[in-house]
Amino acid sequence: MRARTLSNDLIGRFAHIVGDANALTRAEDQAGYLTEWRDRYTGKTPVVLRPGSTEEVSRILALADAHSVAIVPQGGNTGLVGGQIPSSEGDEIVLSLGRLKAVRDVDAAGGTMIVEAGVTLHAAQIAANEAGRIFPLSLASEGSAQIGGVLATNAGGTAVLAYGNARSLTLGLEAVLADGRVWHGLRRLKKDNTGYDLRDLLIGSEGTLGIITAACLKLFPTPAERETAIVALQSPKHALRLFRMAEAEAGGSLTAFEFWAHRAQEFALNYVPGLRDPFTDAYPWYALIELSHGGTGARVSNTIERMLTNAHSKGLILDAAITRSLRQAEDFWRLRDAFSEAQKGAGGSIKHDISVPVARIPEFLERAAAVVEDICPGARPVPFGHFGDGNLHYNVSQPEGMDRAQYLALWDAMSDAIFALIAELDGSISAEHGIGQMKRDALVRHKSAVEIDMMRSIKRALDPKGILNPGKLL
Amino acid sequence: MRARTLSNDLIGRFAHIVGDANALTRAEDQAGYLTEWRDRYTGKTPVVLRPGSTEEVSRILALADAHSVAIVPQGGNTGLVGGQIPSSEGDEIVLSLGRLKAVRDVDAAGGTMIVEAGVTLHAAQIAANEAGRIFPLSLASEGSAQIGGVLATNAGGTAVLAYGNARSLTLGLEAVLADGRVWHGLRRLKKDNTGYDLRDLLIGSEGTLGIITAACLKLFPTPAERETAIVALQSPKHALRLFRMAEAEAGGSLTAFEFWAHRAQEFALNYVPGLRDPFTDAYPWYALIELSHGGTGARVSNTIERMLTNAHSKGLILDAAITRSLRQAEDFWRLRDAFSEAQKGAGGSIKHDISVPVARIPEFLERAAAVVEDICPGARPVPFGHFGDGNLHYNVSQPEGMDRAQYLALWDAMSDAIFALIAELDGSISAEHGIGQMKRDALVRHKSAVEIDMMRSIKRALDPKGILNPGKLL
Repeated sequence: MRARTLSNDLIGRFAHIVGDANALTRAEDQAGYLTEWRDRYTGKTPVVLRPGSTEEVSRILALADAHSVAIVPQGGNTGLVGGQIPSSEGDEIVLSLGRLKAVRDVDAAGGTMIVEAGVTLHAAQIAANEAGRIFPLSLASEGSAQIGGVLATNAGGTAVLAYGNARSLTLGLEAVLADGRVWHGLRRLKKDNTGYDLRDLLIGSEGTLGIITAACLKLFPTPAERETAIVALQSPKHALRLFRMAEAEAGGSLTAFEFWAHRAQEFALNYVPGLRDPFTDAYPWYALIELSHGGTGARVSNTIERMLTNAHSKGLILDAAITRSLRQAEDFWRLRDAFSEAQKGAGGSIKHDISVPVARIPEFLERAAAVVEDICPGARPVPFGHFGDGNLHYNVSQPEGMDRAQYLALWDAMSDAIFALIAELDGSISAEHGIGQMKRDALVRHKSAVEIDMMRSIKRALDPKGILNPGKLL
Repeated sequence: MRARTLSNDLIGRFAHIVGDANALTRAEDQAGYLTEWRDRYTGKTPVVLRPGSTEEVSRILALADAHSVAIVPQGGNTGLVGGQIPSSEGDEIVLSLGRLKAVRDVDAAGGTMIVEAGVTLHAAQIAANEAGRIFPLSLASEGSAQIGGVLATNAGGTAVLAYGNARSLTLGLEAVLADGRVWHGLRRLKKDNTGYDLRDLLIGSEGTLGIITAACLKLFPTPAERETAIVALQSPKHALRLFRMAEAEAGGSLTAFEFWAHRAQEFALNYVPGLRDPFTDAYPWYALIELSHGGTGARVSNTIERMLTNAHSKGLILDAAITRSLRQAEDFWRLRDAFSEAQKGAGGSIKHDISVPVARIPEFLERAAAVVEDICPGARPVPFGHFGDGNLHYNVSQPEGMDRAQYLALWDAMSDAIFALIAELDGSISAEHGIGQMKRDALVRHKSAVEIDMMRSIKRALDPKGILNPGKLL
């Protein structure tokens, strides 16, 4: 059984491990750790601990284990499902990994880099760039998101199509277990068949099986060349045909195929300053296509232009804006990255991070629109996302003029209906954001009893007292 | 506690599930299931069961669970570490998955295929090819190796450099758990962040956590073009520099970089009929390089020629044989694939399947040769393998004229010394063959107590009675 109240003496012993300056007990110091940017989750904690080393994390967990104290690990606090926020009971300690920010090693030739959990994704990208390589994982919150959290949630983003998600980009881990022991699994090997895949088990476990303190990440050659285009499309079916053509023609050079509805772009242009419409006319759907090549021995030049000319002659696209200028490509991506934030300007938004097999995206979009209209007439779907991964952020803004709170009260009803459709289409109710607090109940409804049971058995095996991020995921 | 003897009545109940024709009890019918091709492991069993469906596998496990009977799952019986062979006690039932050989579904456009555990790797490749796609996993035993075993052991092979190992090529699994329940995890999704990564936990667990009955595999575009070369090299250091050049110039188009010592080629030419030396002169080391491209929009043509001309002018290679003819490429690969078998002609061979960071291959080879000479003067190292993955098959043939059995008695001493060197170089004692019976003791010595403990906890959680492939891996 977990401890329900923490004595001042015990809190003092935790504080002693990290030093008083790194044990935050005052409300104003804790505030940034107890809510997240969407303001959906708020918690309480007796103390926020900010350890400065793996060894301090280990000592904290050993003490927590001895006294059955719950620990909520937190990275950059950019998670979207409340996984990083403690409960409102005030009996869970927040463990912030932000001070573990050493880049321990960069091996450019070997294509690996060892970074600590608190290194931001952006800092990791820069460390790779400085060595003449890239760490391709990229997402809107990369300036704040930390590697520990990125791995604990198996983050995705815009480069998954070519490079895979966080799991695919990781070779080894260092992690502290529930009883404080340290697992030194920082391997650099491309192949290693020595027992169970503990690395991939910890990745995506949202801090419930162990606390990642460092990781060995894969680096890739910097693309020698990159071509980017935004195309205008009549329908999701046209997008699917264009995606298949791009796969066939560009092969492994296709590094992004993003997709959005006109409304996403409209909101972005209305509510986020400094963005530019790539077209003079309005179109129903858009896609951003990127081709790049890491080798110096082959060229993608004009592949995208040839491909889109071909697509146009087949009636697949309505218009296209192509660039090989890095600056204009950045403009395209800035537009794409603005969709999530832009929706705030349009009132309340009910959000879904779903995936389906790519071929079923058109069917999903058609049926989901009907589901939404049925539950809340006039609600405005703003679908956008990673078409090539089958992953859409199916966000729905409130009807114009409706009360925000009244609309948001429909969240569960709408999500349940969307998730039921997802089940029919063999999809996932969380493609990249994870489960956290938000989808914990939905997970149990959506998965088979056998699968939930397997997960619970593993949880009990690695965290028998249930002190690691309780109330999250399972 | 596991059952130590099985009554005839109980054996009859197992037989009843699959039908008498598929319950093999006679020695001559069982023989092919109780030894493996290297003749290192031999076992006994009261019955070999050959279920014809997932449902029969489920019923077998439910009965085994009820009576604590040990089950040894077996695919094509091509494993090299004894993982598929029952103990010599005669109290373990062999469960052959070979009759589960339906290709349930091929989705060429979506790039996925669902096959049952008993489908051979070769049959899976053909099913992909017939749909105009490829399933890239390839290894010497692919004619017999079955998908269930390939996944249970996370097999590697010659295409890992570009496409990854078995784990990277799998989207979803169907598996029967220790108590007979079926986990229906046959997902086709590219992204799915809903809980623990059970798929990757089962893959590579060598039948100790569950029995894989079907898998959803990834398919890839058929390369529009392929160039292959065998180059002659002065030393492993030259190979490393050439590999770095190939990575930089060819990027994602580099689909193979195999490597071998002169002795491997000499044995192959001496002992395997129908092979041809690509060169007229003899050289100390060789590499096989393959470039391919899946897209129709770009070309690798002449990349390899340009690259090797450049390499030659820098003194990196001594000679090169280049081809774009499929037939000649097959000759190159036939030579490469013959090394393992060819060693039988040279007497006893002590084998190691190791990996190190790629940059450390030259150091490993130099130091390993000294280790071998120290333990058995005159023993002949025959290193070959997947250079680009850091994975070498460091096999050592007996000194000429030495007694075979006397030489093989040195196996443990030599392996211990090689593994100690591997530990120093941060390598793996099993890069792709797994642990099985052969490396079970070495695993415990080589891994930290923390890691072994994590594995044992997971084993107990998913197989509390210890009936799944006991005595293997852990």
